[in-house]
Amino acid sequence: MTDKRVAVVLSGCGVFDGAEIHESVLTLLALSRQGATYQCFAPDIDQHHVINHIDGQVMAETRNVLVESARIARGEIQALSEFNPDTFDALVFPGGFGAAKNLSSLAFDGPDCNVNDEVSAAARGMVDRGKPIGALCITPAVIARVLEGARVTIGQDEDTAAAIEAMGGKHEITDHGQIVIDDDLNLVTSPCYMLDASVSQIADGAANMVTEVLKRTK
Amino acid sequence: MTDKRVAVVLSGCGVFDGAEIHESVLTLLALSRQGATYQCFAPDIDQHHVINHIDGQVMAETRNVLVESARIARGEIQALSEFNPDTFDALVFPGGFGAAKNLSSLAFDGPDCNVNDEVSAAARGMVDRGKPIGALCITPAVIARVLEGARVTIGQDEDTAAAIEAMGGKHEITDHGQIVIDDDLNLVTSPCYMLDASVSQIADGAANMVTEVLKRTK
Repeated sequence: MTDKRVAVVLSGCGVFDGAEIHESVLTLLALSRQGATYQCFAPDIDQHHVINHIDGQVMAETRNVLVESARIARGEIQALSEFNPDTFDALVFPGGFGAAKNLSSLAFDGPDCNVNDEVSAAARGMVDRGKPIGALCITPAVIARVLEGARVTIGQDEDTAAAIEAMGGKHEITDHGQIVIDDDLNLVTSPCYMLDASVSQIADGAANMVTEVLKRTK
Repeated sequence: MTDKRVAVVLSGCGVFDGAEIHESVLTLLALSRQGATYQCFAPDIDQHHVINHIDGQVMAETRNVLVESARIARGEIQALSEFNPDTFDALVFPGGFGAAKNLSSLAFDGPDCNVNDEVSAAARGMVDRGKPIGALCITPAVIARVLEGARVTIGQDEDTAAAIEAMGGKHEITDHGQIVIDDDLNLVTSPCYMLDASVSQIADGAANMVTEVLKRTK
């Protein structure tokens, strides 16, 4: 067991417009199983849009990223503006389209995307302190936009890999459960649902990412 | 590994107005880890209400149980009206207040509650065929309303236990991860978040329930 304290950044609640729910829960499970404590965060902003997860259509609704993320966190969540890198040992980002639509404009602007200021500040704050960051699924591409030259994986999707390279990052191809480590930036990434995966494979990827992230804490 | 096919009934997406997300995902994980395949279902009805999961207040919104449940199921979900007990080996209910607010009126009417007709028909259909049912958290109390004389657990909450006894059920006190088996009804229950639990303890409870349910399939 460890006494490590890990911040988990969510981006809503649901794969198509928010945080991917399986990746989020299985990241929390891996942290709990490996003896770490966690605190969830999300930016207090409107979602880019709300998607009906049955038919994929945009719904005429407005939802807040922090309020919806609180569903995954069972109400135990803080605004990302409150995040202080001094008080956490590691920072972790599960995936989902919310990372590409709410935490950044990656889904719309590709390699020229903007990243939410609080997300950028959180990631840079950890790098400045030599503390590890973990990221799953599509979030490694968002992190690559923030941290120049990052070596990451999003699995095998050629367009996203090309976008990462266009941002100045380095992409490595991976399969289920594999992680890529950027030793300089102290960054650990795994593809999860960027591959066509089972929920068991997501649990493996999240656990492998968390194991390496916790190993890298001071 | 098994080739068992399990139906999972969800009640929305979020502990306070829908399906408890950790219990739902960790039930899917246990099914996947133990080699079963699953299909998620939910009734195509409006939620009783929408709760802001940060402050607990009712929001001026209307959401559909099936559409919100699809977030947990990544879009792979069917209306509960489509459920056919002939084509599944087992039926499983994760918990969350959605079971007591959307699948039934338990949260408002206690032992006199009504249960959604499709939920009742699904449970009775399995019992009539001698097929097992698993239920977590508060859903054992809903099942006790449908299946007369059911022996179940919801953990240690005295009011809910009394409601189960008032319905003609039998309640057994349990701790984290423990299951109660009703041999006659082929029913397996575990308390999960009806106790103050960690996400690891939820994974244990869901896995223990799934192990026993799969053992009881034909």
